[in-house]
Amino acid sequence: MKHFERLFNPRSIAVVGVSEDAVRPGSQTVHTLLRNGYAGRIYPVNPKYPQFEGMKCYPSVEAIEGEVDVVVIGVPARGVVAVIEQAAAKRVPFAVVLSGGFRESGPEGITRQARMLAVAREAGMRIVGPNCLGLANIHDGVYAAFGSITRPPQLRKGAVSLVTQSGGFGYSIALACAAAGIGFRNVIATGNEADIDTVEFLDALLDDDQTRIIVAYIEGLANGRALLEVGRRALAAGKPLLVWKGGVTEQGAHAAASHTANLTGSYDFYQAAFRQAGIVEIREIHEAVDYIKAFESRRFPAGRKVAVMGGSGGSAIVFADAGEHAGLMLAGFTDETKRKLARVVPDIGAVHNPVDFTAGYIAGGNAENFGTAVQAVLDDENVDAVCLNFATTAGPACHAGAEVLARIAPTGGKPIVVFLSTPPSECGDALPVFEAAGIPVFPSPVRAAKALAVLADYAQAQARAGRELTSAFSVDEDIGQGLRPALLRNAVGALSEADSKGILEGMGIAVTRDVLVRCIDDVPFDTMTPPFAVKVVSADIAHKTEIGGVKLNVRTRDELAAAIDEVLVNARSLAPQARVDGVIVSEMLSGGFELIAGVVNDVVFGPVVVVGAGGIHAEILADTACRLAPFDEATARDMIDELRCRPILDGVRGSAALDVGAIVRTLVTLSQFAWHNRHRVAELDINPLFALPGGAVAADALIVMRSRSDAV
Amino acid sequence: MKHFERLFNPRSIAVVGVSEDAVRPGSQTVHTLLRNGYAGRIYPVNPKYPQFEGMKCYPSVEAIEGEVDVVVIGVPARGVVAVIEQAAAKRVPFAVVLSGGFRESGPEGITRQARMLAVAREAGMRIVGPNCLGLANIHDGVYAAFGSITRPPQLRKGAVSLVTQSGGFGYSIALACAAAGIGFRNVIATGNEADIDTVEFLDALLDDDQTRIIVAYIEGLANGRALLEVGRRALAAGKPLLVWKGGVTEQGAHAAASHTANLTGSYDFYQAAFRQAGIVEIREIHEAVDYIKAFESRRFPAGRKVAVMGGSGGSAIVFADAGEHAGLMLAGFTDETKRKLARVVPDIGAVHNPVDFTAGYIAGGNAENFGTAVQAVLDDENVDAVCLNFATTAGPACHAGAEVLARIAPTGGKPIVVFLSTPPSECGDALPVFEAAGIPVFPSPVRAAKALAVLADYAQAQARAGRELTSAFSVDEDIGQGLRPALLRNAVGALSEADSKGILEGMGIAVTRDVLVRCIDDVPFDTMTPPFAVKVVSADIAHKTEIGGVKLNVRTRDELAAAIDEVLVNARSLAPQARVDGVIVSEMLSGGFELIAGVVNDVVFGPVVVVGAGGIHAEILADTACRLAPFDEATARDMIDELRCRPILDGVRGSAALDVGAIVRTLVTLSQFAWHNRHRVAELDINPLFALPGGAVAADALIVMRSRSDAV
Repeated sequence: MKHFERLFNPRSIAVVGVSEDAVRPGSQTVHTLLRNGYAGRIYPVNPKYPQFEGMKCYPSVEAIEGEVDVVVIGVPARGVVAVIEQAAAKRVPFAVVLSGGFRESGPEGITRQARMLAVAREAGMRIVGPNCLGLANIHDGVYAAFGSITRPPQLRKGAVSLVTQSGGFGYSIALACAAAGIGFRNVIATGNEADIDTVEFLDALLDDDQTRIIVAYIEGLANGRALLEVGRRALAAGKPLLVWKGGVTEQGAHAAASHTANLTGSYDFYQAAFRQAGIVEIREIHEAVDYIKAFESRRFPAGRKVAVMGGSGGSAIVFADAGEHAGLMLAGFTDETKRKLARVVPDIGAVHNPVDFTAGYIAGGNAENFGTAVQAVLDDENVDAVCLNFATTAGPACHAGAEVLARIAPTGGKPIVVFLSTPPSECGDALPVFEAAGIPVFPSPVRAAKALAVLADYAQAQARAGRELTSAFSVDEDIGQGLRPALLRNAVGALSEADSKGILEGMGIAVTRDVLVRCIDDVPFDTMTPPFAVKVVSADIAHKTEIGGVKLNVRTRDELAAAIDEVLVNARSLAPQARVDGVIVSEMLSGGFELIAGVVNDVVFGPVVVVGAGGIHAEILADTACRLAPFDEATARDMIDELRCRPILDGVRGSAALDVGAIVRTLVTLSQFAWHNRHRVAELDINPLFALPGGAVAADALIVMRSRSDAV
Repeated sequence: MKHFERLFNPRSIAVVGVSEDAVRPGSQTVHTLLRNGYAGRIYPVNPKYPQFEGMKCYPSVEAIEGEVDVVVIGVPARGVVAVIEQAAAKRVPFAVVLSGGFRESGPEGITRQARMLAVAREAGMRIVGPNCLGLANIHDGVYAAFGSITRPPQLRKGAVSLVTQSGGFGYSIALACAAAGIGFRNVIATGNEADIDTVEFLDALLDDDQTRIIVAYIEGLANGRALLEVGRRALAAGKPLLVWKGGVTEQGAHAAASHTANLTGSYDFYQAAFRQAGIVEIREIHEAVDYIKAFESRRFPAGRKVAVMGGSGGSAIVFADAGEHAGLMLAGFTDETKRKLARVVPDIGAVHNPVDFTAGYIAGGNAENFGTAVQAVLDDENVDAVCLNFATTAGPACHAGAEVLARIAPTGGKPIVVFLSTPPSECGDALPVFEAAGIPVFPSPVRAAKALAVLADYAQAQARAGRELTSAFSVDEDIGQGLRPALLRNAVGALSEADSKGILEGMGIAVTRDVLVRCIDDVPFDTMTPPFAVKVVSADIAHKTEIGGVKLNVRTRDELAAAIDEVLVNARSLAPQARVDGVIVSEMLSGGFELIAGVVNDVVFGPVVVVGAGGIHAEILADTACRLAPFDEATARDMIDELRCRPILDGVRGSAALDVGAIVRTLVTLSQFAWHNRHRVAELDINPLFALPGGAVAADALIVMRSRSDAV
């Protein structure tokens, strides 16, 4: 927060564009600052008024005698640059530009935004917005904002900060959290992000001691790699980062599945970054509410084994359904736990998991038994977390139950969550008891289960964070010869299959046994094993199949001679401009399973490695996993485990298990190659990559270089 | 409702088990009846008291002088049968047994339940429960209930009825609906369902004019077929039926995927019934709330093309994301609509879909423009429904916007839904305006999109309902010869492949060209085309592969001779008890795509037809669809369209399209066969069913008969 200290804790705020009209943005800002007891100086600016709300009103920013930390600008777009110039002259460090009429509004606005930015950069001034609702520091009554952020209900002080690229929608998330009793630290609507972007704000919030949980709504980022990095820092700092990615379905066509680039879309890369950084993805407003409540409890499960207890059998069933879906397991109790439970649970109940202590068990008169039962389950070494289904428990019984849990919860580290459907008015004041004890309460067993699963996910991600950081950033120093192939040095455009495979071989990835020939007489037929694949070789032909440049399952010498002729004839007639180097004759692989693997060098995320089911499965399954390069073996293994075709690799119907280790090593090598050559390589495809019982072999490959113009 | 008229509208209620202790179930019932102004007679029963709450208290049911329509029983289990006997003697038509201690509590309880039921049946008395919270008719203050149903908050009168197999969880759904302002007609917690079960109650509610929407929580049914039928009647009556199926993950092992029975579980059959009957499945409490709100609007979209309008770009993006996921499409506007919009939407907004009319547009001063914009979009022939993103719109602006929509909504039949995140206290009384106009308001764009999708689903299901009903029930009359095969008449256990295929052929399903032989000399080698499959034939060997009874890809005569010997030797050594009829030599099919198809005769749902991706895909995809037999071609086509492998059937990578029509006909034929022979056939498997460019051919088949003991 250091470099943004004056933005979030300004000693003085100038507000340009105050007006008698209370709905003008500037007026809203000043009224809100006054209402919230902002302790610094407020300088209203409008040449029309000598005074505003009892304060001196200044004709211009220049005319302000004191120092200004933040200038809030709410005047129409055409007047903004002049204000920025004045503020720059006065060395104001931060401007919050509420006004619209910039990049979002066409050519004139684009020019205006560029001019504004140039003035600010020159003066070292940082800009929030333009076209934004602004920002607020809830703890200190700082509002450089207008619109919904300034309207009732007033947000409570708390530990959650929100960064949103959509003011209207992002603040909807804040309102839902507020309704659930969640308090806030900073709220930031970033608008056009002409200067300060979402990731820079996230970074600043990691430095803010008062922010313990961060929620972001993101539509698009210029630098996805920076999100990965800030996410990893957040994970290391133990500050959960919850991100909603808006615009996930406009991924363009997934129709042609022959290249890795077509198998994935931008949203896949966001999700890869989320996974690699332990970022918690949210896709519903109540998920933000639920997960924040869970994280605010600050108790994390050591594993995914949960116990569920209650008097409502249906609630337990629904919890189990949702828990299994979210990757939780019902813990099996030790005999000791069952014995302890049997002493305090009625005979007609159940002492296995789910524990059914029968309806009406949670009650003031039964508090001791209830406490003993909960404690017994929490003490079981097989139990990582407990869900208590209060369901419709109401009134004094509900309060008594809450008191019991509040007494037990702080004594151990295991999370306790509660499902309670009774309306707040009928809970007998149980809710404040739960809140004070840090016990999150959810309005459905499904939501309780999902929140517990998110806590478990987060704990797992944290446990792994150190490892991945170490290995991912050691790549540059420890670079092997194979990752700097000579062939790449002067390469342009698409490399031929032969060259592409040569580069793969150089980095230690197995390729099919090939010979490059010009005619049948060049083929060492006796030393090769049919069937063969016959493919034309030309750096100018990226899609060989489409011009009839590929023949498969060639078995005899005569067939081979005919196939070589045919692919050459086809290439000459259908790609007459292409320089043809000859024909590759490859031993075809059989058995095993066809995967597709490759690298996409994305403009937002940089090099990303993709692996998926190949062949016909690519079309029907859309079964892919991706991660931002570079990464380690454990990450590669996660990718493979994510694939729906994963069981096939272990061998199905009696066939041999395939060499998952070899696939893992291939992916790690690709990730290192992709990272090392990220400024040069645009795309790499291995299609198919044969997973075999003893190895993983590239049967075809294509490397495409970045054009000079976009090379960095 | 006719036959349950006296249960839901009793002229008198006897309550057995009233007590000075207000928490006793009987006491709760009487107190609730009094509090809610029940207009009939109340007869408290307890020999200990002469009076109860100012009313005469009776020593027994016998002692009541007047007629009793319902007896509510809250005494301990051991006393229940005696009360039932008294009530039977007095010809009381209905008993609601709140007490636990019956089937759910072990052998003694099971006996008790059976005795109680026998007494009731003898007297023609119907029983609700035992072990239940009872039931309520909210409109008339009738409460034959205790527990949460009788506690505050008092449910509002309305059009929704709830039937739940779990009192605690089911009533949680009611409470969430109540909090959202939804009113109720009847609430029924069915408990053990010793006599009246969920489906019978659903049926009764269809006859109740005051019930317009029904919600049910179901854990298990004895007769799934009855659910399909009541669901179809509900659809025909235009009463949406929302069902939550609890216990969906305890499906047992899906490990061995070689038989259709293993590819599916009970939950799949429930979902098939839901689809076939237009039952709306819910899996979250707020889904019940949202869908009821949507259905209460009584406006249905004619298609799935929606428009979204608002001043918050983020909300529109989130709506579009969720809408696409739920199968909605963003409508494309006509030029006329765009022209109309351009006249009333600011230049910096957007007049295409989503319509961005910029922040602050919804306001009292702009009501006319807002109304014109909404009307223009509703009038567009490409638009089936509209979502208005009010987002954080608050105060008088929110109210003004609501007034505009309330004026427009009734003028057309297209649904309007609203996303509004402003807390109720800040909405300027907009919420009652929306409610009065039947415009559902949702707290997230995701929930608005899902609710619209459910309305569209329902409208589609209704449009198709007549068709399916007609075709499904005409099967029995119009039965072909092939569906009554002679072979089936005396069959027992598992039929051989040859017999199974013979039966398939008889009903018009194509099978591979096979010969049944004892040795190589029996094979007409010259007239058959290799490669061949060689399979041992024995009614005693259901799993041929496992005993080495199958050899594939046999090409030469020598290979064939060896293969025939081998499968016979394997059968003799590994299945020495099996009577072997010989060996089938089949022409193997190539090209095409392997499906698996079959029939499961489920104990709850009766005959169900399953189709799925076959071969290795069965393992990795779990890609199946099922429907309760019998069904028509359109339903069979739906099944195929549900498969993830569906695109392959249209031909991928230049291969020919496969004969979907032939698959459809095969499934319809199977469904008719399965229905006609439901009392005899336990299971039928076609694995694989080859989908070919010109037909669908069964390459292997197995029919298993029901054992005599479970034949009906």
